[in-house]
Amino acid sequence: VVLPSGEVWDGLRALRKDNSGYDLKQAFIGSEGTLGVITAATLKLYALPRSRLTALAGLESVEAAVALLKRMRSVAGPTLTAFELMSSDSLQPVAGVLGLKRFPFEPIAPWNVLLEISDHQDEAHALSLLEAGLDATDGAPVTEAVLAHTLAESEHLWRLRETIPEAQARAGGNVKHDVSLPLSGMGDFVRETGSRLARQFDWVQPLVFGHLGDGNLHYNVGCRAGFAAQVAFDHEAALNEIVYDAVQRYRGSFSAEHGLGQLKRAAAVHYKSAVELALMRSIKSALDPHERMNPGKIL
Amino acid sequence: VVLPSGEVWDGLRALRKDNSGYDLKQAFIGSEGTLGVITAATLKLYALPRSRLTALAGLESVEAAVALLKRMRSVAGPTLTAFELMSSDSLQPVAGVLGLKRFPFEPIAPWNVLLEISDHQDEAHALSLLEAGLDATDGAPVTEAVLAHTLAESEHLWRLRETIPEAQARAGGNVKHDVSLPLSGMGDFVRETGSRLARQFDWVQPLVFGHLGDGNLHYNVGCRAGFAAQVAFDHEAALNEIVYDAVQRYRGSFSAEHGLGQLKRAAAVHYKSAVELALMRSIKSALDPHERMNPGKIL
Repeated sequence: VVLPSGEVWDGLRALRKDNSGYDLKQAFIGSEGTLGVITAATLKLYALPRSRLTALAGLESVEAAVALLKRMRSVAGPTLTAFELMSSDSLQPVAGVLGLKRFPFEPIAPWNVLLEISDHQDEAHALSLLEAGLDATDGAPVTEAVLAHTLAESEHLWRLRETIPEAQARAGGNVKHDVSLPLSGMGDFVRETGSRLARQFDWVQPLVFGHLGDGNLHYNVGCRAGFAAQVAFDHEAALNEIVYDAVQRYRGSFSAEHGLGQLKRAAAVHYKSAVELALMRSIKSALDPHERMNPGKIL
Repeated sequence: VVLPSGEVWDGLRALRKDNSGYDLKQAFIGSEGTLGVITAATLKLYALPRSRLTALAGLESVEAAVALLKRMRSVAGPTLTAFELMSSDSLQPVAGVLGLKRFPFEPIAPWNVLLEISDHQDEAHALSLLEAGLDATDGAPVTEAVLAHTLAESEHLWRLRETIPEAQARAGGNVKHDVSLPLSGMGDFVRETGSRLARQFDWVQPLVFGHLGDGNLHYNVGCRAGFAAQVAFDHEAALNEIVYDAVQRYRGSFSAEHGLGQLKRAAAVHYKSAVELALMRSIKSALDPHERMNPGKIL
């Protein structure tokens, strides 16, 4: 890290355990360049898995998707390497962008999960894990499921997920929220927030997708067909308040993976405690007393 | 965390992703109470594995043990949940303490590894992973191996490992070093440090064991039979210098898991860079300006 003083701190260590003082690298990770400029990193490498298996599953509710996540984790442990949630509203517009004749199952389910097993043994074993996880014994069934049998099929399933942002951009964009929540409150948060938005705005259409395995949702709010995309932007402050207030009630975060930058400084001041903001400011003052690094960001 | 000001910072969050500002909890983790008093924590729970399998393997060298670790990780991935290294010199005195008639294999090997597979499937599957990993195809053979077939046998293998500190205490103690190293330098570090110590002191006996899976060794230095344990303590400063200088050359840490406290403050000042020490001091001054918290520790 190049520090505000111009000095270089060498924190490159290929160690799993190091308790020889404060864990300084953690101060810089995620600090968005406001404490120093990270110029090098040590990476930890993992053995390549022998087999990767991708599947798409359809479910009736977010709760059923969380139940599936728990079953998959219990069966597959850390070999479960992707678990992406997509609402039907977020997935539907992808068909037009990709020129799809049909989805892997039709109609697509109210909630869909793209999941991946990365197995260190072989494909037969990966398949046995996947089948065991999909077999619901807890009353939260998977209504539909397709498995990618070839690399091309796997890439097709991933393309459905990865085209969602482009489909939303083509529709004129929407008011984006990058939130994380404890899994236990995920279903209630989505239902409650949807109801609250619908009560207040007749044009509203939540477009919900994201890394459910990480507790992370892209809770984007756009407009239903027949309304101009601009309507949502005109109500940005009100939409943010409804979504972020709900995130706060469920002890989530209003910024799961994108950071604060300039856009979310106001949210940080509003939703973080005075004690937390003061701690952040004291670390900023200690490491960058002349406010040289990435001014105007985070704090 | 109760802060030096008496204020409480509530950082209890059950989130995997949270990029809403500096990651403050990381400042307190491992700070040995010098920045505040941690009074509560959120724990992440994992599904219990369905099967645990324990084995003891004998090897000719530290390099062979590192090769076994790599094979096991490649085969078993994250289901490898323990990988403990024990030199014959560290293991031998355990027999007396436990009143053992014999070790699981005799003679015990120059280097011995206690390893554990925690499988989410079943015991047959755990066994297949273990067998695949023990089968050396890379020219670094396992010379002996025993598998625990019952819980009692597994507990017996673990008792061998866990009795090592007591055996060393009963022998009068020794000069302890809790170090971590990059795996790539582990074998050279152990060989070089052993030679260097033996050249300088005719009474020296390294007693090496520890969490090799974490890159962490307890590199303790005692006396051979016929010498009083006190001899090692009389040479503590010289022993520390030889061991820690070698750790530094291999870019390891002189405190892997035990922290600095008061005992290792001098080592921190000697081996850490001036830039790093200044960063640590500025964080201490920022969060605890009146030096109220655990004075005299770390810094």
